[in-house]
Amino acid sequence: MKIISEAKAHGGRQGVYSMESEACGCDMSFAVFQPIQAKEQLCPVVWFLSGLTCTHANVMDKGEYRKMAAELGLIIVCPDTSPRGDHVPDEPDNWQFGKGAGFYLDATEPPWSKHYRMETHILEELPKLIAGHFAADMERQGIMGHSMGGHGALTFALKYPDRFRSCSAFAPIVQPSGADWSKPALEKYLGEDVAAWRRYDATQLIADGARFPEFFIDQGTADGFLEDGLRPWLLKEACRGTGIGLTLRMQEGYDHSYNFISTFMDDHLAWHAERLG
Amino acid sequence: MKIISEAKAHGGRQGVYSMESEACGCDMSFAVFQPIQAKEQLCPVVWFLSGLTCTHANVMDKGEYRKMAAELGLIIVCPDTSPRGDHVPDEPDNWQFGKGAGFYLDATEPPWSKHYRMETHILEELPKLIAGHFAADMERQGIMGHSMGGHGALTFALKYPDRFRSCSAFAPIVQPSGADWSKPALEKYLGEDVAAWRRYDATQLIADGARFPEFFIDQGTADGFLEDGLRPWLLKEACRGTGIGLTLRMQEGYDHSYNFISTFMDDHLAWHAERLG
Repeated sequence: MKIISEAKAHGGRQGVYSMESEACGCDMSFAVFQPIQAKEQLCPVVWFLSGLTCTHANVMDKGEYRKMAAELGLIIVCPDTSPRGDHVPDEPDNWQFGKGAGFYLDATEPPWSKHYRMETHILEELPKLIAGHFAADMERQGIMGHSMGGHGALTFALKYPDRFRSCSAFAPIVQPSGADWSKPALEKYLGEDVAAWRRYDATQLIADGARFPEFFIDQGTADGFLEDGLRPWLLKEACRGTGIGLTLRMQEGYDHSYNFISTFMDDHLAWHAERLG
Repeated sequence: MKIISEAKAHGGRQGVYSMESEACGCDMSFAVFQPIQAKEQLCPVVWFLSGLTCTHANVMDKGEYRKMAAELGLIIVCPDTSPRGDHVPDEPDNWQFGKGAGFYLDATEPPWSKHYRMETHILEELPKLIAGHFAADMERQGIMGHSMGGHGALTFALKYPDRFRSCSAFAPIVQPSGADWSKPALEKYLGEDVAAWRRYDATQLIADGARFPEFFIDQGTADGFLEDGLRPWLLKEACRGTGIGLTLRMQEGYDHSYNFISTFMDDHLAWHAERLG
């Protein structure tokens, strides 16, 4: 693990680090906030998965999570959203695919399959490194995300309910296989057989039997992507009769930006902390 | 006034705007946060002046001021740090002079004197526009700033004690006329006669008789600019015996970044709110 930067913040430490990622075949950056409590004891870990076009830095700069995480004693880990580097294939003019748009999956189609393996990066190699370098209680992990990262959080929680004890999302893409901005990406990363897409779609995972105790979701009513891309009502339908709890708050007048995320960040962290003990 | 962007945040509204600045001979951007209270009543205004290399956006993105400003009912105005545009003279390779480094003065030396008139911009034309377009109580104004912007806040408060009822700073340059990173700028903007620099130097303004009730300053002990550029002890010396109150907190382990600013932002806003009623 390489230290890119570290600074004291809200009594704890905000760092940016990188690792040689075997999964992605490149160096991968990530941000970690350690509260002061981590000097004395293992702390619960909350993962924040970011949306399209983001790196680890967007939520680190604009998410306003440090004050509450410091108060609650939470470690916050913010991974990147795709592999990086000149040698990584990309569609530079397409913000919904390639770099900045890894969709939290392991691609199976060439040329993407060589580097676009964000699921393995975030679920296997990054947790090992976090457990080894930080005072992280890996028995108490929660996961949250925004937009494409909300999709990542929901699908990871559904596939690994023994790993994550809490899951929340800001304006998540709940059904990427059916939304215009994500369907072409799934096709390119995973091929034309839509059966292979089902494990990367929260609503289809639930239809196929995956379960998680409860989700907490905030969605702005002034979000320009609400009707075509996000459609949280599809998750509501999917959860009906399954025993999966869903708290869905429609937040009047909020858009898709970090102005929205930062406004409700404290609520989400408190919700995770309550479930992570 | 032109609206660049507006979004709901913490119940209020974070906007970015621009105006045709006569003082600076260019369009000038600025950010304004309006708390929800501004829908019903006039609210106190706190100005945040940013440091070298910044625009209005740095503190807007990383300052974490919205939650507390919303709670306290404060309007927060964040101006830019210099004139902008291809027609504005600059030293592009010098981050301590020219664009992003206006030093909150009215330059008198050509070619800088035509555009670098930040004092007039921030003290005359911008307040008129704020008073005209927002529910701002101009009888209750406070001012704060960071680094070069701390210098701006201190000198503006000392020169206009009837305008500002509160003043605080994060890691301010308290004596720009004697610091390596600001002395060359004053010389270029104001000429070689150091007498002309005195009204842009907090310690010299105080020596020359300027007064303000009290200052509140936070300074990180791990700030790389502390010894050579900032030197808050010079302000302490300058205030001694003058009746000017100074609360100077040395914050252990904090650097010069927004990790430091955001950590103590709530304390500063509460301090202003208390004095602005």
